[in-house]
Amino acid sequence: MRLVATVSSLKEARLAEKADLVEIRLDLFDDVENLIDEIKKLDKEIIATLRRERDGGKYRGRDEERIQTLKWFAEECDASYVDIECDMPDSAFDFDCMIIESYHNFQKTPEYPELKKIVEDRRGDFVKIVTMGRSKKDVGKIVKLLIECDDIIAFLMGKEFSFTRIMAVFLGSPFIYCYVGESKAPGQIHLDDAYRILKILG
Amino acid sequence: MRLVATVSSLKEARLAEKADLVEIRLDLFDDVENLIDEIKKLDKEIIATLRRERDGGKYRGRDEERIQTLKWFAEECDASYVDIECDMPDSAFDFDCMIIESYHNFQKTPEYPELKKIVEDRRGDFVKIVTMGRSKKDVGKIVKLLIECDDIIAFLMGKEFSFTRIMAVFLGSPFIYCYVGESKAPGQIHLDDAYRILKILG
Repeated sequence: MRLVATVSSLKEARLAEKADLVEIRLDLFDDVENLIDEIKKLDKEIIATLRRERDGGKYRGRDEERIQTLKWFAEECDASYVDIECDMPDSAFDFDCMIIESYHNFQKTPEYPELKKIVEDRRGDFVKIVTMGRSKKDVGKIVKLLIECDDIIAFLMGKEFSFTRIMAVFLGSPFIYCYVGESKAPGQIHLDDAYRILKILG
Repeated sequence: MRLVATVSSLKEARLAEKADLVEIRLDLFDDVENLIDEIKKLDKEIIATLRRERDGGKYRGRDEERIQTLKWFAEECDASYVDIECDMPDSAFDFDCMIIESYHNFQKTPEYPELKKIVEDRRGDFVKIVTMGRSKKDVGKIVKLLIECDDIIAFLMGKEFSFTRIMAVFLGSPFIYCYVGESKAPGQIHLDDAYRILKILG
């Protein structure tokens, strides 16, 4: 399991000391001047993400440009992973680095067969399923997914479901996404807290 | 959710400051002289437990005497709860306080229907299911139980399944059993650590 710090600025990226990887949320960065050089100085593995508004991000442009920007960025900073949404066409999955194929749902957690299909149809090396938790039954869906599938990251959003982020690690999720500075998603855990909890439980 | 410190001595009981309840493991106490008075001084709610060897305890006597001792102890120290194993006859469930009906399996986690039956056949106010974790599938059984049943405490033993003790709280378990001093079961979490984790995730 590896700790990921999701960051929206270089200032945050520099706070991510305990992280194994830094997820650069390009859509949240104000300033991309000199970004590549500064990112290389971090000496961390990089996940490159450019999140659309509908998935909780701030990117409003066209998908073609988005993928082009990601490609440029991933190559320039020698990213280890790039995050591509599962509704993108096959052509978007053409990267030289590993791909995390992501699914977000801020409204609800779909039924298990729908989630399972996303995993089965995967084109990425890993699948990341992030949905809004509404009930204990939603936890059951995520647990079933984590038990039955390999190479997936799956957890529920929502403060009362923060524990699913920790649970996922022990059910085999290769990454746990945390924040430094400001939280990026409902129920996200601070990097230092995740580090502490995993040390105690690990 | 309430924090329980499982203790084997008065020294440990006095360390249980952060606990809401103290589980007195009578089978582990060396000295029961003046015990009642000292326990009353703790000013904590009490769970009275006298665990048999086959369930991971140290009690070797006959069940009739065990229940009599528990009855005496529970009354004397005004216990809020008493722990009675689920294989005991109905006559053992005659207490003036609340009863936690427990099932332990140090070998494995039985299949879900078997666990569900224990819950359905309950005579206690709460059912506590504690089994040895061997695989991710065992986590699935416990999660299903926690989702479908009320008033149950259910988690897996084993260091790599410590997280199920935390998970159970967020899936509705009314108590989390922790240690102070020495660990009483494989994968048990220290009281202070559980307090910290639950504060972060809560």
